[in-house]
This record gives sequence, C-alpha cells and structure tokens, in this order.
Amino acid sequence: MTIADRWLLPDGMDEVLPPQASRMEALRRALLDLYHCWGYDQVMPPPVEFLDSLLTGTGSDLELQTFKLTDQPTGRMMGVSADVTPQVARMDAHSLRRQGPVRLCYCTNVLRAKADQFQGGRSPVQVGVELFGHAGLEADLEILRLALASLVAAGAGEIHLALGHIGIYRSLVQAAGLERDQERAMFAALELKSPGELAARVAESVDDPALAEMFMALGRLHGGSEVLDEAREAFAEAPAAVGAALDQLRALQQGVLSEHPEVEPYFDLAELRGYQYHTGMMFAAYVPGYGQALAKGGRYDDTGRAFGRARPATGFSMDLKLLATLAPGEPPHGGIWAPAEGEGLAEAIAVLRERGERVVQALPGQRTGPEGHRCHRRLVKLGDDWQVSPLA
Amino acid sequence: MTIADRWLLPDGMDEVLPPQASRMEALRRALLDLYHCWGYDQVMPPPVEFLDSLLTGTGSDLELQTFKLTDQPTGRMMGVSADVTPQVARMDAHSLRRQGPVRLCYCTNVLRAKADQFQGGRSPVQVGVELFGHAGLEADLEILRLALASLVAAGAGEIHLALGHIGIYRSLVQAAGLERDQERAMFAALELKSPGELAARVAESVDDPALAEMFMALGRLHGGSEVLDEAREAFAEAPAAVGAALDQLRALQQGVLSEHPEVEPYFDLAELRGYQYHTGMMFAAYVPGYGQALAKGGRYDDTGRAFGRARPATGFSMDLKLLATLAPGEPPHGGIWAPAEGEGLAEAIAVLRERGERVVQALPGQRTGPEGHRCHRRLVKLGDDWQVSPLA
Repeated sequence: MTIADRWLLPDGMDEVLPPQASRMEALRRALLDLYHCWGYDQVMPPPVEFLDSLLTGTGSDLELQTFKLTDQPTGRMMGVSADVTPQVARMDAHSLRRQGPVRLCYCTNVLRAKADQFQGGRSPVQVGVELFGHAGLEADLEILRLALASLVAAGAGEIHLALGHIGIYRSLVQAAGLERDQERAMFAALELKSPGELAARVAESVDDPALAEMFMALGRLHGGSEVLDEAREAFAEAPAAVGAALDQLRALQQGVLSEHPEVEPYFDLAELRGYQYHTGMMFAAYVPGYGQALAKGGRYDDTGRAFGRARPATGFSMDLKLLATLAPGEPPHGGIWAPAEGEGLAEAIAVLRERGERVVQALPGQRTGPEGHRCHRRLVKLGDDWQVSPLA
Repeated sequence: MTIADRWLLPDGMDEVLPPQASRMEALRRALLDLYHCWGYDQVMPPPVEFLDSLLTGTGSDLELQTFKLTDQPTGRMMGVSADVTPQVARMDAHSLRRQGPVRLCYCTNVLRAKADQFQGGRSPVQVGVELFGHAGLEADLEILRLALASLVAAGAGEIHLALGHIGIYRSLVQAAGLERDQERAMFAALELKSPGELAARVAESVDDPALAEMFMALGRLHGGSEVLDEAREAFAEAPAAVGAALDQLRALQQGVLSEHPEVEPYFDLAELRGYQYHTGMMFAAYVPGYGQALAKGGRYDDTGRAFGRARPATGFSMDLKLLATLAPGEPPHGGIWAPAEGEGLAEAIAVLRERGERVVQALPGQRTGPEGHRCHRRLVKLGDDWQVSPLA
C-alpha cells in the first residue's frame, strides 16, 4: 500500500478542516440556542442501538442505509444510527414518558451505508427538532416556522418551501379499496410523475370513475397556491379527510406567509417521500444552488407505538455539514501573537485569555510567524508592561 | 420480542437525556472556547476511515477496540473511529501539511467494540487537543497546563496528576539489549507491579549487574517528588537519555506547580500505558470518586510518518460524557410560559426570543402546565401589553 492510498477517505466520509469546522461549530451553537429559546430540550441519542429498536416501524429504506455491527458480549446485531428521528421517538415514548407536549432537539453524527443523491454524504451531522404529544396544526406550524428560522440563522437568502400531505393519497387509496400490490404500482407511477403510467394504473385498479379522476388529478396538482383551489374543486366529492388535509395545507401556508412573506410555498399533492413513515403534512425547504433539500420534515404520528406508547409527533431535520456551506465568509483574524518567553509573560497571557482573547504563543525556536495562526496583533513588552499592538 | 426488550440499549451505548445533555453541551462549548483562546483550531475527523489509515502505527489495542464495517462500493474494510488522536495526526501530516507548530482540537463521538474498565462506556464523546511540530518541553508543558485548565473548567476540585516518561524504560531496554520476547516479559512484570516477577525476569535477561539494579529500581520508583531524587541516584550510571527524561519530569513538575500549586504530582517511572505509541512524557489526571483517569495524554512523535511526514506530537484527551458528571448542579429554571393564543402574542414572543429568552408556548388544549418545562415566569396580557410575570 502506498502512502497516497492510506490517506484516501471512503467516499462520502469527509473530514472537516479549519476554518470550516469552526463555522460548523458556530452554526451548531446558533441552532441549538434557537431551539432552546423555543422550549426544546437537547437529547443525545446513542450512536449505536440493537437493530430491533433502531428499525422498528421505520420502513425498509432506513434498513438499507444502516451499517450493521455485531455486539460481541451478546452476539446480537446492532445498527449505527442512520436517522436520529426514530431514536428520539423511542426516547420520548420510553425513556422520558412525560405527559403532554414534549419538545426535543439534537445535533449528532449519523452514518449511512450508501451515498444517496438526495441526502449527500454518508457521514452527515444531523440536527433537528421533534415535537411529541400534540396532534394539532399548531404543532406542525411551529415546526415549519422553526425550520425556516433555522435556515435564516444559517444564512439562507431565498428559500423555496415545498408542502404536501400524505393524507390525501392515503384517503384515496382507502376509498378505492386498493390491494397492496395495486397501491404499490400506483405509488410507483406517481413517483415517476408519468401521466401515461398513472393512467394505466388507474384504469387497471380504480373502478369508480370519480375516484379515477381524482387519482389522475393528484398527478397534475403541483405548483403555487392556486393548486389548493384546484384541489378543492377536483376533490369536492372525496372523503372528508382529503378536505381536512387541504384545510391544513391552506392554514400552514397562511401561517408561514404571515411570518415569512418572502417565502412562496410550492405544493405537490403527489409528493410521497417517507410514505411508510409520515402520517400528515410533509415539507422540504430548498435554497437555490443546492440540488437537495436543506431541511425536511413532517408529521409521523404513532412511531412510539412499538415502544409501548403511541404519540402524535412532528419534526424536521437538516445536515449541519451542508447547512454550514450556506454562508462561508472568512473567519475572523482576531488572534494575538505572543513570544516564547519573557518576564511576566505567563501572567499577561493568562489575563488576556481570561477576557476571551485568543493568544497563540510561539514555541522556542519556532520559525513560522503569526501569519499562519490567524493573528493580527502581537504582545510586546513596553517598559515593564506587556502591551497588545497591531502587527507591524 | 417484548416491548421491554426493544428499548434496552447495548451495554455501554448510552443515551443522554435532559438536563444532562445540556450540561454536556455547555461543557463542550467551554472547552472548545478554552482551546480556541490557547490558539487551537477545531477539526472534525471522519467517523469512519479505511482500516489501513485508521490503524497505521497505533498498536494492537486499538485494533481490538475498532468496529469493522464493509464499504459496499469498494468492498474494502473500514473501521469506526475508536480514538481520534491518530486521525488528527493523519490530518496534520497529510491534509493540512502546514510548516511549524500546528495546534488542533476536536470534540466528537467515538465507538469502542469492547467496554474497558479503564475507559468506561463504549460510546464516549472524545474531546482533546494535539500540538504538532515542536519536540521541546514547552509543548509538553502547554499540553499539561491545558489538561489541568480543562479539568478546572469542568468543575474538578481536587486533581491528582500522575506523571511518567516512556524514555526511561525504553533506554534501559536498549542498553540491556533485550530481545523482543524478553522485553515483553519485562513489560508484563512491570505492569503487574510484582517485585518477585520482576526479579525473575531481570535475573533471566539482564546480565549487567548495574542495569539489573536499575530495572529493579524502576519497579519501586513511584510516589511524590522525592521519587525524582531517588531516581537521580538510582540511574546515575544510566544512559544519558534517562537523565534527560528525569530532567523533563522535574521541569514539568515545576511548570505545573507554578500555575497549579494545589496539584501535587505523583510519579510512576514504570507506567507503560500506550508503550507502542508514546515516545516521551505521559500523564493521567485523576479526581477523587472516579475509578479511571479523567484526562490522559503524552508525547507520541512520528505517528505521521506512515502518512509521509514524521512530526513531533503531544496532546491529551478526555471523555466529555464522564467529565460532565463532575459538576452536576441543577439546570436553571429560566423559561417563560406563554399561552396558546392571543392578539399580538406572536410578536411579543418573537421579541423575547430575540433577546435570548426561552419562551415555551402552550399548544391548544394542552393540559400540562409550565412546571414540566422549566419555566418560572409567565407571559400575561395586562391591558394592551404582554408582560412577563412571576408564576403565581
């Protein structure tokens, strides 16, 4: 093995060097402070759990993304966390067991077995919030507002918000009495966004002409707020749950616009991301120049059921690594360069550091200067005193 | 599988709940800020690397502690980081390639395949610093002072500092011309701290009576600063490197005492932790009530050689999870409880949060009150204004 081979990193397993690591740290703090101010308590889920608890009720996508490990003491299979949300749902349902609404937030490394064009690298730093115990729209709106506030805190200018609701498709599938195989074929056609494919699946499995028309409408209904009016008309005869879902989307749109008039929501009623997982509204926030959503979230009630306590739940998450590239900027050159030795020097340095100043002390014989250490001042002795002066 | 089984976590893979997670976050920030003030730049090493680069030159202990994963795209073996230090040495040697002294710090999750009585859990949060590019005592002293400052920042009262130097044993082994097997047996005897076993190994493999006496002295030389005087006498005829090592220990002791007179160093000249790895002074810092060291460090020159660039290196690391248990304390109850709705409420809440206040808003129909949300004030409407009042 050559030296060059040795330092190659696996694809998508990135290291973060200075100054990007400091930017990530600053953003981590800004976001966790924001969540604290909104009443969210931080938790740190375990990086590894037994596979049974990690994958319960999460669907097969997550299983494919999870690295498997053997627990030597027990011989049981463990998985490395690939998504923090189900872990936090377990913590709410089983570890905390609090009554009423519970607000939690986190920021932690996760690992993914496969790189994913929609998810970026295999070692994201997942940051997000979850709100458990409230089934109402107010909880969803709080999550949506907090996601937008997070992007603004990260320096996003133009934000595009895509809104959907899994309840519309789910209600139509139920009304049409689709078998599992039929539903899967319908799902695939909608994901393909192919009208021809959709028409074939509808002709095949939906007998009721009104319902057939509604499935076809689902494939067309994406765009600005006019989509909600069109949907109101197209789904006039649909089950009541469809109307309720549309009401929710309208209310979310209004709630978002009252706080973020610059954000123009986009609606996609056939958006089915996380179908096995989501139970209500879903959203994704985009920023120009990024090929993937920077924040994704939605309602996922009852994940806690597997752990003995079904709870309403809604939340969102982001990748801090990606988010920290939004506002690169130059790191401040605020350091003070100090010589290797001198009388009273240690005390002078201690006082400056106590005040929060960054003091980089030269080491005896050091030939490199203050330039490489982000210093723009130096500590010099004037008479009996040590003074901070600009670099000559 | 029962529900109770599902939420059991693997041994040593802990979750951190509120309020302990906030304490850890606060300590993380305090430590990284401290390192920033001392001129250390933060890095984030990858959580997973190819096994070759992860384990190069680190010795077999680390290999046993490393979880192995298959990289699906390449079929190569990867390892989950069990110790950040060799990763940071690779980053210094190969990714940064800076001239002169380089100061780096980090705080990140690592995983260990086996629980270890000396290391605690299998999912520590490793926090530490490394100083590359300077072979002098001043670098070691800076590291030692920073380790003590870290423990003080974490709330440690009484600190016990154990100091050693791998150069003493290494020089004696070289002078005695021990074969690999002989050296291993000697090593095992010293680790056992058994004088009888040590005498047997010395009789077996050391011919020179003066050297034999020195190996026996090594087993006895542990205790307060008087140990250095005794060692000076016992090793008067030893190779020059032994005297140099003793000089270094004396200077480190004086450097520590001038800043931390309350810390009484303890010397153990037969301490051989990390023998395959360390090349100079080594230390471990203990706090009463903890069965394991809270900070461990030392000099480990030339780890970067495998990556094409041998560099002097010294540093230390700690487990943030353990460290955050030093000063538990009660989290502040500083929150403000706000009602679910009201005219002008959203604006009033936004203003308070903007000021850094924690405002927890009730959700419609919520039956639990402010008590569970660490609030000791509430937002109430007085006339046309929203006012913050103490909880009745």
